[in-house]
Amino acid sequence: MKKSPSMGILGGGQLARMMLLEAHRMGLNCFVMSSNADDPAAQVTQQWVEGSIDELSQVLEFAKSVDLLTFESEFIKPEILAELSERNICCRPTAKHMRIIQDRLSQKQLLEKYSIPTSPFFKVDQFQNLEKVKESIELPLVLKARLGGYDGKGTFILRDWDSSSITQCKDFLNNCTHGAIAENFIPFTRELAVSVARNENGDIAFFPLVESFQEECRCLWVKGPANHSDIEALKAKLKLLLEKEEYIGFISFELFESDSGLHVNEIAPRVHNSAHYSQNGLSLDQFSCHLMAISGIKLNHPIALSSGFAMYNLIGSGNEEPDLKCEKDVFLHWYGKKENRKGRKMGHLNAVAQSPELALEKLIEARKEIKL
Amino acid sequence: MKKSPSMGILGGGQLARMMLLEAHRMGLNCFVMSSNADDPAAQVTQQWVEGSIDELSQVLEFAKSVDLLTFESEFIKPEILAELSERNICCRPTAKHMRIIQDRLSQKQLLEKYSIPTSPFFKVDQFQNLEKVKESIELPLVLKARLGGYDGKGTFILRDWDSSSITQCKDFLNNCTHGAIAENFIPFTRELAVSVARNENGDIAFFPLVESFQEECRCLWVKGPANHSDIEALKAKLKLLLEKEEYIGFISFELFESDSGLHVNEIAPRVHNSAHYSQNGLSLDQFSCHLMAISGIKLNHPIALSSGFAMYNLIGSGNEEPDLKCEKDVFLHWYGKKENRKGRKMGHLNAVAQSPELALEKLIEARKEIKL
Repeated sequence: MKKSPSMGILGGGQLARMMLLEAHRMGLNCFVMSSNADDPAAQVTQQWVEGSIDELSQVLEFAKSVDLLTFESEFIKPEILAELSERNICCRPTAKHMRIIQDRLSQKQLLEKYSIPTSPFFKVDQFQNLEKVKESIELPLVLKARLGGYDGKGTFILRDWDSSSITQCKDFLNNCTHGAIAENFIPFTRELAVSVARNENGDIAFFPLVESFQEECRCLWVKGPANHSDIEALKAKLKLLLEKEEYIGFISFELFESDSGLHVNEIAPRVHNSAHYSQNGLSLDQFSCHLMAISGIKLNHPIALSSGFAMYNLIGSGNEEPDLKCEKDVFLHWYGKKENRKGRKMGHLNAVAQSPELALEKLIEARKEIKL
Repeated sequence: MKKSPSMGILGGGQLARMMLLEAHRMGLNCFVMSSNADDPAAQVTQQWVEGSIDELSQVLEFAKSVDLLTFESEFIKPEILAELSERNICCRPTAKHMRIIQDRLSQKQLLEKYSIPTSPFFKVDQFQNLEKVKESIELPLVLKARLGGYDGKGTFILRDWDSSSITQCKDFLNNCTHGAIAENFIPFTRELAVSVARNENGDIAFFPLVESFQEECRCLWVKGPANHSDIEALKAKLKLLLEKEEYIGFISFELFESDSGLHVNEIAPRVHNSAHYSQNGLSLDQFSCHLMAISGIKLNHPIALSSGFAMYNLIGSGNEEPDLKCEKDVFLHWYGKKENRKGRKMGHLNAVAQSPELALEKLIEARKEIKL
């Protein structure tokens, strides 16, 4: 029997795991490459391949065995992306798009190119770059490593020009091996997110606007649908970006809401924590949507299955034997990680209800029952 | 990290596959035993064990490696079930329940015991049993092999006493190595089904009544929710049966609707084709529900996510290269079977809509797009 084009996922964490579960459902032919046989994604398939996504030769070897490559995250070495591009290896999103978005500088420039509101920024390679413009800078200033930052890692907030802050800032910049950017701190009233997918035929599927809440720089919960008077205008701009750039795949935009409207904070060129709710809240979940987008399947706009939905991350405490028993009417999604480490995303809960608030309430109650 | 009690599924077809996908989601520790490494269930786990469910020694070996056994189907050799019972191996449903329900004679007696309406029946070991009561029998008469029948296999309808019918009937009975039962043919107006699960704490979760449609003795579609004035009375009796018998797990009842009300046609002590719709139509799908029931997790009543839902089986034609592309807003569930054989269940489609009829219509349209 003919198989569908084979897809290879680089990386074996929870995002790849949930992608594979949907691939199984839809009968798509997916392989996954990761370092350990007990990685979350490796557990759920017989098509796991051992290999490091940081080793060019292993990535190329894996690429040869599949029709197209996709990525669990944007943390792929730039030189590997360059090589994939150079060799015309079919990647979705393309290696070029991954390269642009993984680098906070070119990511910002991409937003500027399409007049998408985002905090003003400038390039910072060394502390001197800041000192020179000290007089014109308004504090706090957010410094972000150009490559590799996530969940608050790779970010430093400069709040003062005292010597201790300067030392910390210098240390931070020294650790940014690929440089950093500085941007104005946005005094946000809410954090929001919107996701969208596009396939090669130009079908576009927007996911609803949602509100997200971060604790210790890590997403704790998401609820939706959310509203904002600027969202339709923003979506039109995002659509234009995807079309002009011919982006293929799922993509998420983290947003800040402030008195001056919606601003894009960060882009993730992949499935994203802020859209996990879609597994139970929508007629189309982000994981199958990404796979459909990259394999050219028609995309329909997802429909909300309920007037409210929410997601709550299960973050490891590192000191409890997990007990997942929960009597509430919620959906548990567990990642199968071997070790309950403090601060680690171990799984998440989804719920639907008559309103976003009621869905979130259900999850907060359910979370209390789970020992983690 | 402590794992949940390990469960072992005997059998590696699509039902085991869909169970495993839910086990992954919920972080339950499931193993599966089947004959081939490319069986539908084997493809979606690294916890596949090679073995034949017809070989006692292999079943016992597998049982030793897990905390409890469960079954993909009731087609387990009676002597193997007897041995599992004898050795007090933890099975859910119990080997005793599997034994009672797999045999159409004791299954019928179980229904009688709880005064659950079902077609009158009697035991038939050889043709003489029929001849003796010929005068009092009303034709057509449905003969069913006591063991191993499904999708019309193991069933013979005696419509006449002519010599050709008698020869066919004798041939049929000769092939029924464990004997047969005869039951009156019920002139049904609709076929319906209802499923329910019970855990060891006594939680009971009823799934909605649905209508099913068979073509060539094989389920073609299911739509729901359906209504019938007798359903609440019937559910009360089924509940009593589960409670008194201390049944644990998911169980489905195929029903006939006739002028005289609802009759139970057959019982399946497992997840069932008639409840596949639950994967997208309800807040709780049958596969996770079964796993929750057998591992003692609290069961909540499933809530319909829409006012209508439907399921349509994808039956192989044996002569087409499958092409699963479909532009409709439906959910594809594919079983990963290696060969597109005529009459084989290759996958199914689910849809939700404002009414059962609209959901079914969506599926009929979607089915036209799929080449199989």
